[in-house]
Amino acid sequence: MEKIYEKLERTKVFRDPLYGYVNVDYKIISDLIDSKEFQRLRRIRQLSGVSMVFQTAEHSRFTHSLGAYEMANIALQKVRGMENLNEYDKIVFLCAALLHDVGHGPYSHAFEGVLGISHEEMTIKIILSPITEINKILSIKTGLADDIASVIRHDGKHPLLESFVSSQLDVDRFDYLSRDAYFTGTAYGKIDYMRILRSMLVKNNTLYVKSTGVQAIEAYLVSRYHMYFQVYYHPVARSYESILESIYRRIVDLTKDKDIKDKNISAFLNTLKNNSDIASYIELDDAYVNGFIKQFTKSKDKILNKLANCFINRHLFACVELLEDGSNEDKVKEIKNKFNKVEQRYFFIRSDASAAIYLQSKKSDINDIKVLLPDNKTVKSIDQYSDLVKALRKLGEKTVSRIYYLDF
Amino acid sequence: MEKIYEKLERTKVFRDPLYGYVNVDYKIISDLIDSKEFQRLRRIRQLSGVSMVFQTAEHSRFTHSLGAYEMANIALQKVRGMENLNEYDKIVFLCAALLHDVGHGPYSHAFEGVLGISHEEMTIKIILSPITEINKILSIKTGLADDIASVIRHDGKHPLLESFVSSQLDVDRFDYLSRDAYFTGTAYGKIDYMRILRSMLVKNNTLYVKSTGVQAIEAYLVSRYHMYFQVYYHPVARSYESILESIYRRIVDLTKDKDIKDKNISAFLNTLKNNSDIASYIELDDAYVNGFIKQFTKSKDKILNKLANCFINRHLFACVELLEDGSNEDKVKEIKNKFNKVEQRYFFIRSDASAAIYLQSKKSDINDIKVLLPDNKTVKSIDQYSDLVKALRKLGEKTVSRIYYLDF
Amino acid sequence: MEKIYEKLERTKVFRDPLYGYVNVDYKIISDLIDSKEFQRLRRIRQLSGVSMVFQTAEHSRFTHSLGAYEMANIALQKVRGMENLNEYDKIVFLCAALLHDVGHGPYSHAFEGVLGISHEEMTIKIILSPITEINKILSIKTGLADDIASVIRHDGKHPLLESFVSSQLDVDRFDYLSRDAYFTGTAYGKIDYMRILRSMLVKNNTLYVKSTGVQAIEAYLVSRYHMYFQVYYHPVARSYESILESIYRRIVDLTKDKDIKDKNISAFLNTLKNNSDIASYIELDDAYVNGFIKQFTKSKDKILNKLANCFINRHLFACVELLEDGSNEDKVKEIKNKFNKVEQRYFFIRSDASAAIYLQSKKSDINDIKVLLPDNKTVKSIDQYSDLVKALRKLGEKTVSRIYYLDF
Amino acid sequence: MEKIYEKLERTKVFRDPLYGYVNVDYKIISDLIDSKEFQRLRRIRQLSGVSMVFQTAEHSRFTHSLGAYEMANIALQKVRGMENLNEYDKIVFLCAALLHDVGHGPYSHAFEGVLGISHEEMTIKIILSPITEINKILSIKTGLADDIASVIRHDGKHPLLESFVSSQLDVDRFDYLSRDAYFTGTAYGKIDYMRILRSMLVKNNTLYVKSTGVQAIEAYLVSRYHMYFQVYYHPVARSYESILESIYRRIVDLTKDKDIKDKNISAFLNTLKNNSDIASYIELDDAYVNGFIKQFTKSKDKILNKLANCFINRHLFACVELLEDGSNEDKVKEIKNKFNKVEQRYFFIRSDASAAIYLQSKKSDINDIKVLLPDNKTVKSIDQYSDLVKALRKLGEKTVSRIYYLDF
Repeated sequence: MEKIYEKLERTKVFRDPLYGYVNVDYKIISDLIDSKEFQRLRRIRQLSGVSMVFQTAEHSRFTHSLGAYEMANIALQKVRGMENLNEYDKIVFLCAALLHDVGHGPYSHAFEGVLGISHEEMTIKIILSPITEINKILSIKTGLADDIASVIRHDGKHPLLESFVSSQLDVDRFDYLSRDAYFTGTAYGKIDYMRILRSMLVKNNTLYVKSTGVQAIEAYLVSRYHMYFQVYYHPVARSYESILESIYRRIVDLTKDKDIKDKNISAFLNTLKNNSDIASYIELDDAYVNGFIKQFTKSKDKILNKLANCFINRHLFACVELLEDGSNEDKVKEIKNKFNKVEQRYFFIRSDASAAIYLQSKKSDINDIKVLLPDNKTVKSIDQYSDLVKALRKLGEKTVSRIYYLDF
Repeated sequence: MEKIYEKLERTKVFRDPLYGYVNVDYKIISDLIDSKEFQRLRRIRQLSGVSMVFQTAEHSRFTHSLGAYEMANIALQKVRGMENLNEYDKIVFLCAALLHDVGHGPYSHAFEGVLGISHEEMTIKIILSPITEINKILSIKTGLADDIASVIRHDGKHPLLESFVSSQLDVDRFDYLSRDAYFTGTAYGKIDYMRILRSMLVKNNTLYVKSTGVQAIEAYLVSRYHMYFQVYYHPVARSYESILESIYRRIVDLTKDKDIKDKNISAFLNTLKNNSDIASYIELDDAYVNGFIKQFTKSKDKILNKLANCFINRHLFACVELLEDGSNEDKVKEIKNKFNKVEQRYFFIRSDASAAIYLQSKKSDINDIKVLLPDNKTVKSIDQYSDLVKALRKLGEKTVSRIYYLDF
Repeated sequence: MEKIYEKLERTKVFRDPLYGYVNVDYKIISDLIDSKEFQRLRRIRQLSGVSMVFQTAEHSRFTHSLGAYEMANIALQKVRGMENLNEYDKIVFLCAALLHDVGHGPYSHAFEGVLGISHEEMTIKIILSPITEINKILSIKTGLADDIASVIRHDGKHPLLESFVSSQLDVDRFDYLSRDAYFTGTAYGKIDYMRILRSMLVKNNTLYVKSTGVQAIEAYLVSRYHMYFQVYYHPVARSYESILESIYRRIVDLTKDKDIKDKNISAFLNTLKNNSDIASYIELDDAYVNGFIKQFTKSKDKILNKLANCFINRHLFACVELLEDGSNEDKVKEIKNKFNKVEQRYFFIRSDASAAIYLQSKKSDINDIKVLLPDNKTVKSIDQYSDLVKALRKLGEKTVSRIYYLDF
Repeated sequence: MEKIYEKLERTKVFRDPLYGYVNVDYKIISDLIDSKEFQRLRRIRQLSGVSMVFQTAEHSRFTHSLGAYEMANIALQKVRGMENLNEYDKIVFLCAALLHDVGHGPYSHAFEGVLGISHEEMTIKIILSPITEINKILSIKTGLADDIASVIRHDGKHPLLESFVSSQLDVDRFDYLSRDAYFTGTAYGKIDYMRILRSMLVKNNTLYVKSTGVQAIEAYLVSRYHMYFQVYYHPVARSYESILESIYRRIVDLTKDKDIKDKNISAFLNTLKNNSDIASYIELDDAYVNGFIKQFTKSKDKILNKLANCFINRHLFACVELLEDGSNEDKVKEIKNKFNKVEQRYFFIRSDASAAIYLQSKKSDINDIKVLLPDNKTVKSIDQYSDLVKALRKLGEKTVSRIYYLDF
C-alpha cells in the first residue's frame, strides 16, 4: 500500500460541539493537523474584531479548519455519487478542506487590505514552499501538494472538488456559517446542511442538487446574507478593524524609505518587504500583533501612539453610514474637515462592505448551483428554478458604506 | 382588589422545552387552563396529518396554546412600551393569547373545508356561550369575555392587542413556528423571536419595529414561508387530510336528507346540523374522529368503507401536481377519467395551498409591519424599507395545486 | 441474494430531532415499519400519564421504536468489533431493536398490573403469531421470527445481541432516556451515548466497555435514576394511572361472572379472557381506552361512573407518601377508614415504585457492565471498578410507596 | 438618587449563547465592564491548557465573568426571598459576581503554584487598589469596594451573598459548568440551574433548598465531579500546564539572585518581586506569556530553551499515573532516574488533582447545602437528607496523581 493511503490504527477523534466528533482516519491528515503551520491557526481568531461585539466569538481558525475537514468527510458519506471518487481524489478533497485557510494571517481582513497579500495566495505558498512542514508531509506522493493547491486555487483542473471546496455551496461555508452561529449565539447561521447534502448528487463529475433540496438552499442563501450584515460587517467589529488597518498603514508609511530594525516587528516587516518569506509570515499571529501594538502605546510617533491606544483600550472609532441618497454628505464632510490631510489618512477611514443573496459568477458557471429536475435530465440554474432566488438575484449586491473616524 | 387581578400564592409553572418554563401568576389564567374546553386541546394534535410524514410532530394544540400564552408573557416584559399597558389590558392580552385556538376541532383543516365552520368563529362561541366553563370563569368581570372575543375577532377595537395576537408578527406565529420546528426536527422555523421582541416598540398604542430588527424579521418571513411548503403543505400530510375530507363529505352526503341516529357519530352530526351546539362540538377530538372512522372500516356503504380503510391503514392517496404550464393536463385528465362522477367526488380531490413571504393586507394597514427609522419619527412599511421584502412581495402568493387520488 | 438481504433502492429516511435522520436501508425494515401492528404504536403514547404533568411528553411508542432501531444502526457503525457480526445477525439485531416494544398496550403499566399480561410476552406473541403482518414479513426466512423473539425474550441464545437490546446498557434505554428528556424538556436524561458507544468493544461475542468510558457510564446511571423519580414516577402521572387501574379492576370485577356483550369494549373483554387473542389486542390503543372511559362517565354503575369522570375531567386522586419511619401511619389509616371495603378496592390505591442506580442481576452476569482495563486483559464489573458505582450499589433499590385516593 | 443606583437609559445587552442575552441595567455595572482591568479578561482563556485537548474550549474569563453576573441577575429574579434584598445589597451581589475572577492571571493554575499568588487575593487587590479603574468606579459610594471585597473574600460579614458568590451552589459554578460544557462540546456540565434556582429559598438571611430540588442538586454534584476528571484534569491539559510550570520555575530560579532587566518579561519579573505591583500584574495576559516563551525558544539557557520549544511546538510531556497500589513504582523510578537532579526539577513533574462529589466544609457550615423539608421548619444538610449524597460523601476526595515528564 502506498504511504499516502496509510490509516491510523484507530480513528482519532476531536470533540466538536457541532458534529459531536471530528473523525480522522488517514495518517496524513493527522500529520497535517500536527504540523507547525496548521497548529498556528489555534492562535488566530476566526472572526477577528467580531468578538468586540459578540464577545463569545473567540473561536479560532483551527477549529473552523477541522470543521471544514469534517464537513468534507460527511459529504463523502452522504452525497450520492461521491462513492465513485477514487481514494486519491478523496484524500485531495480532505486535505484541501483542511488546509484551505492555512494562509490566513492575524486579523486577515485589515492585513490584506493594506499589504496587498491575499490569504489564498499565502495558503498556496505554504502548501508549496519546501520549507514548511506541511509541504514535507505532502511530499509523500509526487503531485499531491500541487493537486491540493490546484483545488484551492480553483484553476479548473478538478472542477468537482473545487466546487465542493469553494463555490456557492461548499464545505467551507457550511462549517463557518454553522460554527459562527454557534459561537456568537445568533440564530441566523443555523443552516440545514444535512438536508442540502442529502439533496446533492454527483453525475459526470458535476455537482447537482435535486429540486427537493431547493428550499433548504434558499434558506441557506438568506442565512448567509444575514450573517454578513448582522455579524461579519457589524460596525463595532469593522471599527476595530479600521483602527488596525490604520496602524498597519502607519507602519508601512513610516518604514517605507527607512531600513528599520525593530526586533519586535521584524517578522512583520519581513513579510511587508517580501511576502514569499514564509518563515516570517508564519511567526505572525494574533498575539504577535497585539504584542507590538501594545508596545506602540508608548511610541514617540504621535499617530501610531494614538492608534495603538485606541486599539488596546478599545476606544473604537465612531461610525457614520454614507446614506445612498447623499442626504448626510454635508455632515460627513464636516467630520472629515476636522482632520488635516495626514490625519485623514489614519483617522477617517471609509469601509465598504457588500454581500449578495446570490451572484451568478461572470467568468464561468462553475459556481452556479445547478438544479436537477425530477425528470433526472433537465438542469436549471437555481436562479432560473427558484422564484425566490430569481427575485433576490435582481437586488444584486447590497453595499453598506461607512466612515469610521476618531471621535475626539 | 378585584377578583380578576387575584394572583396565585406562588407562580405555577409548566416545564416547556422551548422556554424552560411557562409561568402562570394570575389565578384566572390557571382556572382557564383547567377548564374542560381548554383541556380538550390536549386531545387534538397541532399539526393533524403532518405526523404522517414528520412522525415526531405529535404535539397538541394544548402545548401550543400554553406556548402562545408564555410568548405573550415574554412580550409584556421585553417589548418597550408594554409597561404602559394597564393591568386589565394585560390580562385581556394573556387570555386572548391562551384561548385563541380553543375553537379548533380535530383535523381542523379538513373539517372546516367541508362543513363551513371556521375555528375562529368556534373560538368566539366557546368564549361567549354561557354553557362553557371558560365563559363562567371569565364572567368574573363584566365585559371581559367580550373584550377577549373582540381581540381574537380582530374587530379593530383593541388595535394594539389585536396586532400582538394575530398579525404578521404575533405571539401565535412566534410560538408555532418555533414549536413546530422543535417537534418536527426541522431547522426552518427556528426564528430569533427574542431579537424581534427586543426591536419592537409600542408608541401611541401602535406597534413598531426599529430598523435594527429588520433583518431578523426578514429571516422570520422567509422561515415562515419555508415551513409552509416544507412542513404544513407536505404532500403526505395533505394526502392524509384529503382522505379525511372525503370521509366528512361522504357522511354529509349520506345524512343530508335522512335523520340518522348513529350514537357513535351523534356529536358530529349535531355539529353538522347546528354549529352553535357547543356541547356537541366539545365532544369532538382526534380520538373521536379516529374512533368512528375505525368503525366505518366495516361500513356497508362501499365508498365510506374504502375511505375509512385507506385512512386507518395509511393507504394514502397518490399525488400529482398540476403544473402551471399545463404540460401534464392530459395525464391528470386520464387519471380523472378512471373514476365515475360519484367516485370523483371522493377519490379525486384537488387541493390548493398558498403562502406568501409578505402580503400587504387589503382592507386596512393593521397587519402591516411598521418600521420606525433611527430618527424616531419616520415610519415606513417593511416592504418599503427592506429591499428583500420588497422584492419578495412582488412574487405574491405561491400556490401549489395538487390532485390527490385513490391509486388502485 | 436472499430476499432478507434486499436493500431499498435509496436509503429511506425519517426526520428525527435527536439523530437528524433515522436511516432505513433494508427492505425488510421498511416493511416492518409499514405493518399494521407497528403503525399501531403511533396511537400509544410512550409515557402514558406523564403528559398530565409534563404536558409536552406527547410522543408515541412509534417514534421511540424508530429511535431504538436507529440507535442500533449507530451501534453497528460505532462500536468496535461489531463489524465482525455477520449480516444475518445484524438484521436480527435491527429487527429486535425495532420491534422490542410492539406488544405494548395503551397505558401499559396499569394494564399489566391488573390483567397480568406483560408487554414482553405480547411482543413475542405478535412476532410469532401467524395472523400478524409482522410475522408474515419475517417469514421471508425460516427461523428469523424465532431468532428475533429469542433475543427479545433474553433467553441466552444470542448473548451479545441480547445485551445490546436489553441490559444495563442497551439501545432501548439510550433512546428513551434521550428522547424522554427531549420531549419533556428536562435535563436529566441527556446522556452521552456517543461517547459510551465509542468506549464499547466487542470481543469473543461479549460486550465490554473500556475504562475510558466509565465516567460517561456513571453519569448515565445517575441520569437514569433521576429520570425514574423525577419523570416516570411523578405523583401526578401515577395518580392518573391509578385511576385507570381502578377502572380496569372495576371492569374485571363486573364482568367476571357475567357474559357481557358490550360492543364498545369487546376487544378489551376478549383480551381479558384470552390474551392470545392477538386480533383483539391489536385493536387496543389510547383512543380506544379513552373512548370507552368517556362512555362510562354515564355508566349506571356508580363506581365506574365516578372513576370515569375523574379520569376524563382530570380530577386526580390525592397522594400521600408512606413515610419509612411510619410517622404518618395514623393519618393514612384515617384516610383509609373514610372508605368502606368495596370503595377501598377502587378509591384507595397503594403504588410502590422502585429504581436503583445499579443492580447486579441475580441469575446471571449477562446484565453486568464489564470494564476492560487498559492492559486489554483484566475485566472487572463496573461496581468493582468504579468507586462511585460501588458506593451507590450499596444503596440498593430506592422505593417510594404512595397511596393515591379519592379526595372528596 | 444616589449615583450608585443610576440606571442606563436602555438595558444594554450582550448576546450570549447560554442565556440569549446578558442584561445590564445599572450604569456602574456597565462602567466596570468597560474598565481596563475587566477588559483584560478577554485576553485570558478560561480553561488554560484544556484547549490543547478540547480544541473548541477557547472562551475567555471575560465571557464567564459576564455569565456569572447574568446568573446573579437571574437568581435575583427567580429565587424566592431575594426580592427582600435592599438595592444596595443587590448591587454588591451583582458586582461581586462580575468581578470575582478579575484577579486571574494567564494560565492561572501554573502561575499560582509556582509563584505563591492566589487569584482571589489578586482580585481583592485590584478591587481595593486606588490605581485601578475598577476602584475608581467603585469609589462612587464609600464602603462599596470594601463590601464587594468582603463578599469575595468570604469573611463572614455577608453570609447570604457569600454563599451565592462562592459555596457549593453558587452563580460562579452554575455559569462555568454550563459554559465549559457548551464550549467543549461535552455533555457532563449541562446542569438544570433553573430548577435549582427555583427550588431555592432565602429566609432569615440564609439560603435553603426545598426538598423538591434535591435530585437536581444531586445531578449537579455528579456533573461537577465528572467535569473535573473528564475536562479540567485531563492529562493533555495538565501536561501542557506542567511545562508552563517548569518554565516559570526556571525563570524564578534563574533570576533569584540576579537583577535581570529583560524588557520582554519585566512585568512578569515585577510581579514576581512584588505581587502588590498591580500595574505590572495587569500587563500579564495569555499573549504576554506566549510571547516571552516564544522568545525563549532561542534562549541560551538549555533548560529554558528546551521547555519553551516543548510549549510552543506542543511537544507535550508524557504522562504516567501513580497507581494507588504502588504496582508501577519501579517503572516510575526508572523514568525518574533518567534525569539528573537539576533536570528532575523541570522535566519530571508530579501533579495531583482532587475532587469530591461533596465535601462538608470544616471550619463552618456556611458552605453546606441546607435542605428545608416540606414542613417548612426542619432543616437537614444535604448529606443527611439525600442517600445518594451521603453515600458519595463517604468516598471523600478522589485524587489522581500523575507524573508528567519529558520523553526523549
